[in-house]
Amino acid sequence: MSNALKVTNPEGLPYTEYEREFDVPASAVFRAHIDPELYRQWIGPRGLTTRIEEHDYRAGGSFRFIQQGNDHVEYAFRGSVHTVRENEFILNTFEYEGWPEVVTLEYTRFEDLPGGRSRLTGRSVYPTLDARERYLADGMEQGMTEGYDRLDELLAADR
Amino acid sequence: MSNALKVTNPEGLPYTEYEREFDVPASAVFRAHIDPELYRQWIGPRGLTTRIEEHDYRAGGSFRFIQQGNDHVEYAFRGSVHTVRENEFILNTFEYEGWPEVVTLEYTRFEDLPGGRSRLTGRSVYPTLDARERYLADGMEQGMTEGYDRLDELLAADR
Repeated sequence: MSNALKVTNPEGLPYTEYEREFDVPASAVFRAHIDPELYRQWIGPRGLTTRIEEHDYRAGGSFRFIQQGNDHVEYAFRGSVHTVRENEFILNTFEYEGWPEVVTLEYTRFEDLPGGRSRLTGRSVYPTLDARERYLADGMEQGMTEGYDRLDELLAADR
Repeated sequence: MSNALKVTNPEGLPYTEYEREFDVPASAVFRAHIDPELYRQWIGPRGLTTRIEEHDYRAGGSFRFIQQGNDHVEYAFRGSVHTVRENEFILNTFEYEGWPEVVTLEYTRFEDLPGGRSRLTGRSVYPTLDARERYLADGMEQGMTEGYDRLDELLAADR
C-alpha cells in the first residue's frame, strides 16, 4: 500500500507528528473533514459507528461526536475550532470526554501533490508527556490508520 | 510583596507553568477573567489600553481583544474556549495575531486558600519549543507580572 500513515513521536517531547498521502486533491480530503456527513463515515477505527452532534468547522465553532461499537458502549469526543483556511489548514482542540482536561491541540495541513494527489500533515500537541503515552497506549495509531483507510474507500466511492 | 508571580519554564519541554496568589477568593479572580469589563482593565502590561471585541467564556465560545499603547500600534489576540467551570477552571486556545499559528493551549485553575485568599495556577502549552522562546523573549513574563499587579489593584478598588 503506497499511502501508509507515518507517525513520529519525538522522544521526550509531547507531540505526535503524522503524515498521510491520498490519491485525491487536498480539497477533497479537506471537505471530508468539515462535511459532517462525510466525516462520520470515516473517522475512527473500523467497527465503530459515529453520530455527529455538532460539527461547526469555522474559527470560533465547535464539534462533538459519539462513537459506539457492537457492545453499544459510547465514546464521546469534542473540541473547539481555532482556525480554518479552506483546503489548507485546520487548528482545533480535541478531548475524549472520558479523559476530561487531557485536551490536545490539533494542527492539520492539506497540500496538493502532483498528479491530483495530496498530503495531509498533522501535529498533536499534548498537555503532558503522560497524556501522549495514554493516547498511544489506547491504540490511537491503529485507529488513525483504519480511519484514513476508510477515508480512502469513501473518497474512491465518491469519484 | 507577598503575591509574586512564580514562573517555571521546564528545560526542554514546551510548557510555561505559573502560579500567583491573590488576597481575594477564587470566585473574584475567576470573575475578573470572564467579565469583559473587568478583564479589559487588567490584562497585559501597564501602559496599554485594551478594547474587547468578543469575550464569550463558555465551552464553544471565543474571544478577541486589541491592545494599544501611546504609539497607537495595535496588537490583537484571539482564542477559542474549550472548557469553563465556574470559579475553578478555564481552558482556551490563545493566539497573538501577529504570529498566526503559534497558538497555545492555556490551562487556568482557581482555588481558594484559607483567610479569603486564593491561588491561580496556569499552564501554557506551546506547539514548539521555539514558540515558547519567542513568547519569553517578547517579555511575556513582565507582561503577566504587571497584568496580575493591575488585577490586585482592580480587586482592591472593587472591595
